[in-house]
Amino acid sequence: MHSPGGKVSGYVALMIVQIIFLVLFWLFVRYEKELLPPAIDAEDAGSAKEHVSKYPQFQDIQVMIFIGFGFLMTFLRKYGYSATGFTLFMAALVVQWSVLMKGFLHMEDGKISLSLENIIDADIAAAVPLISMGALLGRTTPIQLLCMSIFEVALFAANEYLALNVFSICDCGGSITVHAFGAYFGLAVALMLRPSSDQNEAGKLEGASYTSDIFAMIGTTFLWVYWPSFNSVLAEGAGGERAILNTFLSLAAATVTTFVVSALVSHENKLDMVHVQNSTLAGGVAVGTVCNLLLGVHGAVLIGIIAGTVSVLGYRYLTPWMTANLRLHDTCGVHNLHGMPALISAIASAIYASMVTVGDYRSELQDIFPAMVGTNGTETKIMGGLARNASSQAGYQLLGIAVTLLIAIGGGILTGVVLKYTSFRNLKKDEHHQDEHYWEVPAVENKEE
Amino acid sequence: MHSPGGKVSGYVALMIVQIIFLVLFWLFVRYEKELLPPAIDAEDAGSAKEHVSKYPQFQDIQVMIFIGFGFLMTFLRKYGYSATGFTLFMAALVVQWSVLMKGFLHMEDGKISLSLENIIDADIAAAVPLISMGALLGRTTPIQLLCMSIFEVALFAANEYLALNVFSICDCGGSITVHAFGAYFGLAVALMLRPSSDQNEAGKLEGASYTSDIFAMIGTTFLWVYWPSFNSVLAEGAGGERAILNTFLSLAAATVTTFVVSALVSHENKLDMVHVQNSTLAGGVAVGTVCNLLLGVHGAVLIGIIAGTVSVLGYRYLTPWMTANLRLHDTCGVHNLHGMPALISAIASAIYASMVTVGDYRSELQDIFPAMVGTNGTETKIMGGLARNASSQAGYQLLGIAVTLLIAIGGGILTGVVLKYTSFRNLKKDEHHQDEHYWEVPAVENKEE
Amino acid sequence: MHSPGGKVSGYVALMIVQIIFLVLFWLFVRYEKELLPPAIDAEDAGSAKEHVSKYPQFQDIQVMIFIGFGFLMTFLRKYGYSATGFTLFMAALVVQWSVLMKGFLHMEDGKISLSLENIIDADIAAAVPLISMGALLGRTTPIQLLCMSIFEVALFAANEYLALNVFSICDCGGSITVHAFGAYFGLAVALMLRPSSDQNEAGKLEGASYTSDIFAMIGTTFLWVYWPSFNSVLAEGAGGERAILNTFLSLAAATVTTFVVSALVSHENKLDMVHVQNSTLAGGVAVGTVCNLLLGVHGAVLIGIIAGTVSVLGYRYLTPWMTANLRLHDTCGVHNLHGMPALISAIASAIYASMVTVGDYRSELQDIFPAMVGTNGTETKIMGGLARNASSQAGYQLLGIAVTLLIAIGGGILTGVVLKYTSFRNLKKDEHHQDEHYWEVPAVENKEE
Repeated sequence: MHSPGGKVSGYVALMIVQIIFLVLFWLFVRYEKELLPPAIDAEDAGSAKEHVSKYPQFQDIQVMIFIGFGFLMTFLRKYGYSATGFTLFMAALVVQWSVLMKGFLHMEDGKISLSLENIIDADIAAAVPLISMGALLGRTTPIQLLCMSIFEVALFAANEYLALNVFSICDCGGSITVHAFGAYFGLAVALMLRPSSDQNEAGKLEGASYTSDIFAMIGTTFLWVYWPSFNSVLAEGAGGERAILNTFLSLAAATVTTFVVSALVSHENKLDMVHVQNSTLAGGVAVGTVCNLLLGVHGAVLIGIIAGTVSVLGYRYLTPWMTANLRLHDTCGVHNLHGMPALISAIASAIYASMVTVGDYRSELQDIFPAMVGTNGTETKIMGGLARNASSQAGYQLLGIAVTLLIAIGGGILTGVVLKYTSFRNLKKDEHHQDEHYWEVPAVENKEE
Repeated sequence: MHSPGGKVSGYVALMIVQIIFLVLFWLFVRYEKELLPPAIDAEDAGSAKEHVSKYPQFQDIQVMIFIGFGFLMTFLRKYGYSATGFTLFMAALVVQWSVLMKGFLHMEDGKISLSLENIIDADIAAAVPLISMGALLGRTTPIQLLCMSIFEVALFAANEYLALNVFSICDCGGSITVHAFGAYFGLAVALMLRPSSDQNEAGKLEGASYTSDIFAMIGTTFLWVYWPSFNSVLAEGAGGERAILNTFLSLAAATVTTFVVSALVSHENKLDMVHVQNSTLAGGVAVGTVCNLLLGVHGAVLIGIIAGTVSVLGYRYLTPWMTANLRLHDTCGVHNLHGMPALISAIASAIYASMVTVGDYRSELQDIFPAMVGTNGTETKIMGGLARNASSQAGYQLLGIAVTLLIAIGGGILTGVVLKYTSFRNLKKDEHHQDEHYWEVPAVENKEE
Repeated sequence: MHSPGGKVSGYVALMIVQIIFLVLFWLFVRYEKELLPPAIDAEDAGSAKEHVSKYPQFQDIQVMIFIGFGFLMTFLRKYGYSATGFTLFMAALVVQWSVLMKGFLHMEDGKISLSLENIIDADIAAAVPLISMGALLGRTTPIQLLCMSIFEVALFAANEYLALNVFSICDCGGSITVHAFGAYFGLAVALMLRPSSDQNEAGKLEGASYTSDIFAMIGTTFLWVYWPSFNSVLAEGAGGERAILNTFLSLAAATVTTFVVSALVSHENKLDMVHVQNSTLAGGVAVGTVCNLLLGVHGAVLIGIIAGTVSVLGYRYLTPWMTANLRLHDTCGVHNLHGMPALISAIASAIYASMVTVGDYRSELQDIFPAMVGTNGTETKIMGGLARNASSQAGYQLLGIAVTLLIAIGGGILTGVVLKYTSFRNLKKDEHHQDEHYWEVPAVENKEE
């Protein structure tokens, strides 16, 4: 409407994308064999049941993606339609794209087999651009967001493949591949899209109202409650239950710490809702990569305490500094909720990996650290000696986070350049953080309320 | 108070209904045998566990009924107490009534056996009058709503019995028996209760506020997330997992389509919250009847795209036309969210049924299309030939939707006549869409906010 | 800051508590043996799976604690940050404390074994101080609340041990040990903290706004929906499914009754949101202690009807009387939601216990009423005769509630005295029910909205 890449053409392009998805599904995606009706004289239908046992955890993750992320971002006083609506839009697009992208990396006979596992993976992938969206919230058009998410998820799938399948790092809850990637990609895009000049202070709409802050608490509490499902869904056996317990306790410790540190560092020692909405969750991110390891309960609690502290201090001191000195507005503070806690998780993973022994991990070693057993790992091999020793594994963990940062930041800068300098329409400063540029907003609002 | 059938007498009547329920439970309902303590030397308690494996899906459906429907209807600016409160009231009454009604159709030795399955069925039945309530929202008294729901659920149970047990149609997710029935029944009641004259435009309270729209998104997102549980809860084995996948992908495709079409057809190409709140869900309805069939993934996506498109166009063009020309206010647009998408689902079911072969459906044929196997269906029978051929089954699917429409519209007209011309109190035009006629509303509101 | 025991010192003390927890976890808590990796040649990992089958119910309870309680208390117009925030803070502290406290009562070899069961128990324990918080809402500092919760949970664990392990009462859904304890403890604290003089009427902020009432309905509906999980999580086998059905039907009957009675007793026969938000849930409390017994479906419905009636009448007549005559402000009316319904549940448990026979309960007798079988209960023993007869068991049920009330009220008075007369800062009357004394509140609020 306004310009090439403006409103109508962008939406039309997205419809074409949806239709391309339809064609790709038709050409390449089939139900997994176990989902087809069994033969009349077949005896067991065991495999289908195996998947479905993860269905409740899948639903918890669905709530995190659609309600958790969506409502967490409603804290802006005039951006609630966009927060909940664009979350829904982006997630709906990304889950389809992710089924295809990740499927292409694991095709059999030229076809992608679809089962519940694929859409669990797709939901996890949807978290990535939603994290990035938090860094940009209110300063992009929906078309920019959606295009970013398509680039980003493709890069995410490649980086995840590299980290998990090539470097064989452990990353059970995805802090490295999901949280660090999403956060630094988003920050890099935000850096590229920053306005050329800027007041030091945030725009008047870049803040909460009393009601919007309570809406955001819906997001926070659902993310808090279901975080153990996110971290444990890909873990197996006893490791899955350890992942649940470690995540729960890390969150609890991070929450207590967040309240205390928030009161200590805030103006007049009053609690700050931004900290409560976000830093309480940092414990879930920081324990993510290591949540299925033998941390000991105290390990999980300690990680939570560190994460809560770092996250609150980040909101209090680092974010304003970045805004003032780098003109980098990280609207939701994803650096403090996802970025730094993910770095903590990566470092913790190197420390714990360096202490791994066959005596401790026994039959789970194959599953958690497959490279230590060897690609053709057999039980004999484990007992004989490790294919990759503990210090090497620790090194690979650090390599994993380093390469992730590199790809995320590089990809983010590139994406930012594309979004800024090609035909996409950019928002002007005075259009930021306002629903009304993209939504019909009730007119009665201004008069009566 | 005001008149016979006015406030107090209506509530007293409902208390009497509750006490009648108590007596009927006492006389007719018993725990299922498997829920009684096993004998001391009994070996297995397998059956109880079998039911309980559906408990997580039951809870998802509970959230859809009580939170999903309730909050979806909070979009009206001054009707939030009624939306959430009457949903709770109606659902609590209907689940009891439905256990009794549906139980009477399946008694053994003059008793109804109660297990988790019965209350799953009851929750599904509760969806029916809640859908109808959407067509009437804000234009009835609570007593009218509750009485309507008692008539409606009885008729629903009869129609469902006819469709599933007599016509043997497939309707896994209930789009024909639940969605089409609820929508057209509600629209027929709305037609009967319409005011004798009307301004063309909606009343000033028949709209959203910024806050009420965000409350409504709570409903939308929970319905979105848990819809696969609603559609799959009655499916068995591999069909259950197909139902989950097809519903999920249809919803995703409908969501992307909704945003695009909403922007293309709306004023100034701005997105419309009404579309986002409702049409995104049309994919779940449209795939409902066929969700456990071998649609192919692309089939589910295609259905979602069609449903999203039809639903948005319905909101944009058909609903205003019906208001203007028929004086039919469909407050929540249930025709666009439930009615038309259910018709799409019925047509899709005829198409897919016409292509059914024994080679494709194998051992699931008995479960999904029992009439094609025959009432005494044995494996030999299946292999020998079909008791009802594929084209006949397609015909029965169309018969199913036709009879459902007939009963729903006929029943709705009758119910509407009873509610309008007997001693029930009717709301006047200026009492519409306001909580304060039935609720204590904080007085402070007007002064301070 | 203001005084000894003022803001900063209180928060610092809580940080020290968190660090003490860390040390205690390190010294005493270990993963349960089944959570360690199995030996390489081990054959089954069955036990871990057994726990994890309760994971979906655990998650439902998490939602009740963090979202349910938190949002139910957002009904105050200017206390939403505190309602949701302090719920999160308190629950995060209490779950850790409860794992330790309850663990110390069941140590093996000087260590606490941690599994999913412990954090299910911890979530249930978190409900106790949250119930008490409802009686005090808006009239304490957060430091007072948190300190109260530490005392209270220790006493709760002791009382629960006494009731369940010494008196061997049945209390499946915890109405005696959780609801009665939490409610009367909180009321006793409130009595101690009441201001020395008082206007008869509530402060102007001790009420709802239109928006805050709808936020509260989020809490109500989630509590309603997931209550069957709370009541059934500790039940075994068929008893678990009976607990689900009885709780569901009791809630439904209480809900219908609540609406009717609310309309009948309220001003101008208008419905009161306070009743709808709270009394609808009384059915869940009143059926709690007996939910796994052979009530018959009609028994559950009858209990729901009684609970709904008593609860609404309590809100309408008893609470204002207590405020006027005892200066006891029960902000959320926990006496009507938790206190009286729990007494009903205790009485019901005595009645049903007095009718227990071996013929009815068969193999479940050992599990539900272990003292009737005897501590060394064998099957022969059951068949030979009951170690404790039915009337004695009924007597013990009454003893259980009596001792619970004694300990709760005594402990609450003591705690109240400590909170009032030691160095804790107390809120002044004009600081009540306002977030802004403890939270940064958006300044823009007063100007624009």
